[in-house]
Amino acid sequence: MTRFFLPPDALGGNFAVLTGENASHAKVLRLKTGDRVILCDGASTDCTGVISDVSPGQLGVVIEKRIVSPAEPVLSCTVYMAYAKQDKFEHVVQKATELGAMELVAFPSARCVSRPDEKSIAKKLERWQKIAASAAEQSGRGRIPSVTTAQSYAAALARAAQADFPLFFYENEQTRTLHDALGAAVRGTVSLMTGPEGGFEPSEADAALAAGMAVCSLGPRILRCETAPLCALTAVMYAGGQL
Amino acid sequence: MTRFFLPPDALGGNFAVLTGENASHAKVLRLKTGDRVILCDGASTDCTGVISDVSPGQLGVVIEKRIVSPAEPVLSCTVYMAYAKQDKFEHVVQKATELGAMELVAFPSARCVSRPDEKSIAKKLERWQKIAASAAEQSGRGRIPSVTTAQSYAAALARAAQADFPLFFYENEQTRTLHDALGAAVRGTVSLMTGPEGGFEPSEADAALAAGMAVCSLGPRILRCETAPLCALTAVMYAGGQL
Repeated sequence: MTRFFLPPDALGGNFAVLTGENASHAKVLRLKTGDRVILCDGASTDCTGVISDVSPGQLGVVIEKRIVSPAEPVLSCTVYMAYAKQDKFEHVVQKATELGAMELVAFPSARCVSRPDEKSIAKKLERWQKIAASAAEQSGRGRIPSVTTAQSYAAALARAAQADFPLFFYENEQTRTLHDALGAAVRGTVSLMTGPEGGFEPSEADAALAAGMAVCSLGPRILRCETAPLCALTAVMYAGGQL
Repeated sequence: MTRFFLPPDALGGNFAVLTGENASHAKVLRLKTGDRVILCDGASTDCTGVISDVSPGQLGVVIEKRIVSPAEPVLSCTVYMAYAKQDKFEHVVQKATELGAMELVAFPSARCVSRPDEKSIAKKLERWQKIAASAAEQSGRGRIPSVTTAQSYAAALARAAQADFPLFFYENEQTRTLHDALGAAVRGTVSLMTGPEGGFEPSEADAALAAGMAVCSLGPRILRCETAPLCALTAVMYAGGQL
């Protein structure tokens, strides 16, 4: 069933209206009166309904049932990924949304080749948020992950360290595995912090440790900067009983 | 350290020669006399050595030490992925190589939109194998995963079912999770079978069950056909103590 995200206040009654991009999307899909859809408030409530009316630029939907979205994981994982070249962050936004991330944060790091300025960041954020919304619709999420940026490496670290499981993946970490860092059970909030193309500087790993992050490895193979966050997210979801 | 794959018989003595693509790659990287490199036989032996001679089109390397490649996982995972549109299989070859897959097998399935003919398959296989080799070099693998195709769905199923853990991921599976299918410990050989863009037909899932595959889900979210195999591979590697 096609899923549309609407603001919560548009879903308060027994009838809702699809407009704007939602209406355009419905038109592309050739949805018609009688078709069933899911309207989601982006806060884990799914409303199932039936299209009752198709007009130019808008569709009416009679809401039948409200349920807690079954696709939201119990774990709240935030992906902190250093700015990367090309469209790697876009790739990670799309896949991490499918894999159940709650939030993505891009941050600057010493070896980042990509150093977008403020104007470029604003444009990128808009694009990334659209990719997250589209991936959330397609994968059946009950939330659209929020995509933000941290002003500095220190700011990203300070935020990431507040999670119940603040994980920092460092390719030079030789002994401590992800399994070691998670221990017997993982629950609550998880931060997953990964570096740019060239990896983290040793001084950055020291700062992470000092900030209270659990520095660990993702195995003996060197993962690309766009592979590491998705590998970490998947492993944590599995460890947390979500797969 | 830069890694080059050479045929095992080129690594029998105390001196080896980089030629062809390896020599071109070394030139691009501007490697020079005295630089250290790793020469790998593709069968889990890494030879560390020093470049002793740089000539047009070839480089001499003095081999110093042979070790068992530290980056090969204990688990032997084969990814069976249905033919997919665009470059999705290429993406999976690259990432699955980083994540430690032993082999990749592309196969036809009822809902495949992509149906390459024999000539096109031969070309694709050559390209896929090159991507695997390049990803193996970059990620520090001791083996290049082999990339093959299965002639039919039935042939893919028959091969996949022979593994110690033959896993079939079906989006309509509601109750059995990957965790259920793996049980307490995963070791030996693992098959990971995932469908095309539109998913598997119910009759294909029935056939998988009849062939002895463990039909299970990858969670409540709908994953893209290129996300599912990598999610499954990562989770299995974590479950098998490889992360």
